[in-house]
Amino acid sequence: MQKRVAGPEIERLIQLLAKLPGLGPRSARRAALHLVKKRESLMQPLTAALEEALDKIVICTTCGNVDTSDPCTICSDPRRDGHVIIVVEDVSDLWAMERASAINAKYHVLGGTLSPLDGVGPSDLNIATLVDRVRNGGVREVILAVNATVDGQTTAHYITDLLAGTEVRVTRLAHGVPVGGELDYLDEGTITAAIRSRTTF
Amino acid sequence: MQKRVAGPEIERLIQLLAKLPGLGPRSARRAALHLVKKRESLMQPLTAALEEALDKIVICTTCGNVDTSDPCTICSDPRRDGHVIIVVEDVSDLWAMERASAINAKYHVLGGTLSPLDGVGPSDLNIATLVDRVRNGGVREVILAVNATVDGQTTAHYITDLLAGTEVRVTRLAHGVPVGGELDYLDEGTITAAIRSRTTF
Ligand SMILES: [Zn+2]
Ligand SMILES: [Zn+2]
Repeated sequence: MQKRVAGPEIERLIQLLAKLPGLGPRSARRAALHLVKKRESLMQPLTAALEEALDKIVICTTCGNVDTSDPCTICSDPRRDGHVIIVVEDVSDLWAMERASAINAKYHVLGGTLSPLDGVGPSDLNIATLVDRVRNGGVREVILAVNATVDGQTTAHYITDLLAGTEVRVTRLAHGVPVGGELDYLDEGTITAAIRSRTTF
Repeated sequence: MQKRVAGPEIERLIQLLAKLPGLGPRSARRAALHLVKKRESLMQPLTAALEEALDKIVICTTCGNVDTSDPCTICSDPRRDGHVIIVVEDVSDLWAMERASAINAKYHVLGGTLSPLDGVGPSDLNIATLVDRVRNGGVREVILAVNATVDGQTTAHYITDLLAGTEVRVTRLAHGVPVGGELDYLDEGTITAAIRSRTTF
């Protein structure tokens, strides 16, 4: 706003909302007004939820998951198979895996990928703690569920090399045609992978 | 999340963030994780900004603007021309007018438009307070800067009728080709209006 049309508190709220992923300056203004209009039903509960999150949310020192207890709900769940650790880049990937309900294992959140160009080295990621978990025994398989990007694959290779001296089996997610996916929209690499890994009908 | 993978505080934060305009369930999850990661630089300041906004933001009883003082910054600014009142549907429209810096007048925020289908009648909008402001004198012109929608125009006609007995001049925004707009993308109504209001080159 060029001219001063409101107190600085509103402008500050808009500026901070605009830093959320998915919100730009325009949608941050709309969000701020929406909050003011829904004062009782949204602004107060959201403020309280943020206060509670600030107070309670911690990073699990075992696996890197975000939770309100350390060790987290997943690490301390005895019904989960602790022989299998799924390595993901981010907590959002852990959530995506859980939504799929494909496996009842434990996790390890790297907190990113190796990226020499961005100055991200092994010590910037939760890699040493993964090696510790494997060395402490009881782990039979490490599934590298990193993204199929260059940095993701670099990170997968690095971890595979690190774990080469251990007894653990290192696996990765299969490549192929996404369920519901149309061939016409897929890149050549995916189609080639799907052909190579074809199965009997 | 099907299975319980984290404490309920995180899920609650995600649910509330998803109620913001522009954020869906997926982007709310990303926003929540972003907040947790940027605890010091974003989550704490945003929580503080919301607390301050809850504490200080009020609706101006004169014009319906959102501010931290009542009367608001605009209503109490002696450098603004109080002879002209710009009537807008929403505070976001007031902000849009201010960004354009086209006029140095005062405002009146209706808080919506008349909408018989949605059960919105004159008593649901800040219309009586507008009539009071005009009757109290000192107002020479009321600019109806409502949206060029059916409900906006219905509202404009209703207000024009209400103010018919007063001395005030009631005007509306001009229709025409948006600056930078391409004719090929404009509807027939806009082109017709632009032709009818054509000016000498
Ligand atoms: Zn954990
Ligand atoms: Zn005001």
